[in-house]
Amino acid sequence: MKLLRRAPLTILASIAFACPPAAAQTAPALTETQAQNVERLIERGLEDDLAWEVLESLTTEIGPRLPASPAEARAREWGVAKLKKLGFKNVRIETFEMPYWERISEKAEIISPFPQQLIVTALGNSIGTPAGGITAEVMRFETLPALAAAPMEGFEGKIIFVDELMTRTQDGSGYGVAVAKRSGAAREAGKRGALAALIRSVGTDNHRGPHTGGMNYKEGIAQIPIAALSSPDADQLARAMKLANGPVTVKLDLSVTMKESEVSGNVIGEIPGQTDELIVIGGHLDSWDLGTGAIDDASGIAITMAAAKLIDNLRGKPKRTIRVVMWGAEEVGLYGAKAYAKQHADELDRHVLAAESDFGAGEIYRLDTRFGDGAVAKAAPMAVALRGLGVAPGATDIGGGPDIGPIRDLGVPVVSLRQSGWDYFDLHHTPDDTLDKVDPAALRQNVAVWAAFLYMASEMEGDFGRLPPKEVAE
Amino acid sequence: MKLLRRAPLTILASIAFACPPAAAQTAPALTETQAQNVERLIERGLEDDLAWEVLESLTTEIGPRLPASPAEARAREWGVAKLKKLGFKNVRIETFEMPYWERISEKAEIISPFPQQLIVTALGNSIGTPAGGITAEVMRFETLPALAAAPMEGFEGKIIFVDELMTRTQDGSGYGVAVAKRSGAAREAGKRGALAALIRSVGTDNHRGPHTGGMNYKEGIAQIPIAALSSPDADQLARAMKLANGPVTVKLDLSVTMKESEVSGNVIGEIPGQTDELIVIGGHLDSWDLGTGAIDDASGIAITMAAAKLIDNLRGKPKRTIRVVMWGAEEVGLYGAKAYAKQHADELDRHVLAAESDFGAGEIYRLDTRFGDGAVAKAAPMAVALRGLGVAPGATDIGGGPDIGPIRDLGVPVVSLRQSGWDYFDLHHTPDDTLDKVDPAALRQNVAVWAAFLYMASEMEGDFGRLPPKEVAE
Repeated sequence: MKLLRRAPLTILASIAFACPPAAAQTAPALTETQAQNVERLIERGLEDDLAWEVLESLTTEIGPRLPASPAEARAREWGVAKLKKLGFKNVRIETFEMPYWERISEKAEIISPFPQQLIVTALGNSIGTPAGGITAEVMRFETLPALAAAPMEGFEGKIIFVDELMTRTQDGSGYGVAVAKRSGAAREAGKRGALAALIRSVGTDNHRGPHTGGMNYKEGIAQIPIAALSSPDADQLARAMKLANGPVTVKLDLSVTMKESEVSGNVIGEIPGQTDELIVIGGHLDSWDLGTGAIDDASGIAITMAAAKLIDNLRGKPKRTIRVVMWGAEEVGLYGAKAYAKQHADELDRHVLAAESDFGAGEIYRLDTRFGDGAVAKAAPMAVALRGLGVAPGATDIGGGPDIGPIRDLGVPVVSLRQSGWDYFDLHHTPDDTLDKVDPAALRQNVAVWAAFLYMASEMEGDFGRLPPKEVAE
Repeated sequence: MKLLRRAPLTILASIAFACPPAAAQTAPALTETQAQNVERLIERGLEDDLAWEVLESLTTEIGPRLPASPAEARAREWGVAKLKKLGFKNVRIETFEMPYWERISEKAEIISPFPQQLIVTALGNSIGTPAGGITAEVMRFETLPALAAAPMEGFEGKIIFVDELMTRTQDGSGYGVAVAKRSGAAREAGKRGALAALIRSVGTDNHRGPHTGGMNYKEGIAQIPIAALSSPDADQLARAMKLANGPVTVKLDLSVTMKESEVSGNVIGEIPGQTDELIVIGGHLDSWDLGTGAIDDASGIAITMAAAKLIDNLRGKPKRTIRVVMWGAEEVGLYGAKAYAKQHADELDRHVLAAESDFGAGEIYRLDTRFGDGAVAKAAPMAVALRGLGVAPGATDIGGGPDIGPIRDLGVPVVSLRQSGWDYFDLHHTPDDTLDKVDPAALRQNVAVWAAFLYMASEMEGDFGRLPPKEVAE
């Protein structure tokens, strides 16, 4: 188990495909009524308009929703109004405090030998440059490991450029590798005495909208400003360095605002069940500021809200309560997720299952789970019921997702309805994360899968076990 | 003839396909040596690396090249150096003066009821807003004709939004329709007393980089500032108006610089021929400021320069001189083209043919021509020779292109090697017009077609006639 937890997801997935859980044959099948309800929910999900309405409303009426910003506060009010209007119960905001970061302006240009603008965006949590910017010679590294392996000398007075490419994959596994430079570049460059860092955007597109995203400094290492170049601008800077007969000088000018503490919050609504057992689902309400957060993560909000509403539309109460959480401030450090785990510590044993939707609006292609040891076989009948929607059975030892991470670490079993992410990192954290990028048909498939899954999770006999406490890395 | 000149190109094309010129059978065929040279040039064109080198050099070392800007001046010096290095003769800059326009800053936001930024770009030649911007209620029109048909009242104090969509076509014919709003929106809104105008970008992409482009005011009509929203931002504004229960207020803040006169110029180089007859080819050296002008029109510069160089590489001089012109200041009113026609008025009778490359770097799929009445049949053997490169015979009564328009209007026959433009208007005039968008294989196909065409145009017996003087529209 320990070994498996550390293996990459792709390996887990192939194990899961090659060796379906031995206990699958002994898993409880759905009753005839349950099977009929699943079919009904799938039909309704595939005709659903609510998710699109919610998605359109959030991305249009609120737009970008930077964590702890006035826009995120408006989004919470929007969430409360929407949940109440749809008939959700116990609708409330649970606030928490957190540090605030906001970009003011960002500009970069090649000063010599080929003067021209470059398009950049500051990474979240980056400090600004001194007024007037930083003008310095650029040193380029093909990858973050190449920078990390470089000698400690020769970086003084330089701007470091980490030009690492990201690989496009369906499951997003290219991101985990590529995103390391987002904090790593400033740390490695900072500890070598560089003035600033630039990275090629962590993304897979070739447009001029750079990808932002959160970064963090490390105590004891000098903090230097860091920004991402769009992919064509990274190409351009690399080419300029190739064609120049000598140093290439760049000016970087970032201005940001930081505040020690501002208010953010989670928005919660429920479809009450017949028992006090809870299933927690949701997406995150905040977004980066460059786009309108349509795929990251208004889609997750819309899909989970619409699926829960389909359960509510069935005759009678579900067996278990379905709690929809619109997580706050996910993008800059999972503040909402951590606050929830703390604020709900005394009722975590009621949480029988958690799942989140936070990978865009691509079709769901796999049901991944992590149930307690005695309950692993319960994934099998769920997967069978979702087969007609193109969903395959998947791994049984997955993480679940960022916002349910803190409660998973406290023992709550998790499900991941894995979405196809071929184009997710073309859009993620960019100005291009807008409503037009969402395919309404794929959104409906998500609602159908979620509704069917929710129903089964609510009605199945017995719970999903408990997970062992998190093994903290040394 | 008169009727055909007014017919849309698509109709002309289908006529051309259905009824090849009757004289085709009587056209002079190529000699055996000529046919061998054509084959050799095609082979070399398909292996060409020079066009890519030129394209990379111009877009990287100079970058954006706004008409009459310091960057365009650097591009002229670049052009002279490049032509000389490649062995072109009579290399020179021919300057002219023109008005100058430059964007300083541009910003738009929805103020109420859904506050958020919108991404806009000022159209070339637009005036700025008063300091502090213009804040006003938005009135939306589905198309420019709808605005033009609106009553004259009710526009005072408003910002007019023309949300017209553009159709994607291979031949770019959707552009002619869609671009009318670029000047039309400000004129129609201005004469009705509106404060400012916004248009949906004239383009076919769905990214957040808006399309700029030149506009002109009309004498006697109030001048109002105008900017283009990116396509997702136009969607967003239209949706905000749909979801709002009342007026939507937008703030537009544009700052521009205008100067009455600055210097621009054409750059010229030649492959001298055995006779004093001239073939003029080229692309335009200037570009819009948002991208690096890779497809518009560094590609045209690169393709024509590389093709001329392949002719120069043949044994012996070509029969006719091949003059490469890097036209200046095309984007804002064909200043270079008009200056050339004036500056070369006394030698226009030596110009036996003109052709330009100004539609990106997509593969050439058709040979369109406009030769004098007695020479129409000469297109046929040219087209036959280009068949293997995927080039079909096309219309015989086309315009040729913007930069050769003024000399065509004075009688010079023209050829258009038509490029596939499916994605041209995804990139045209946007920040995304960058080198990575050019397919090196398609660029080589262009060089091969151009080299073969140039050779035939240079070596064919007899000239291509003269065109009748332009019929000036009333």
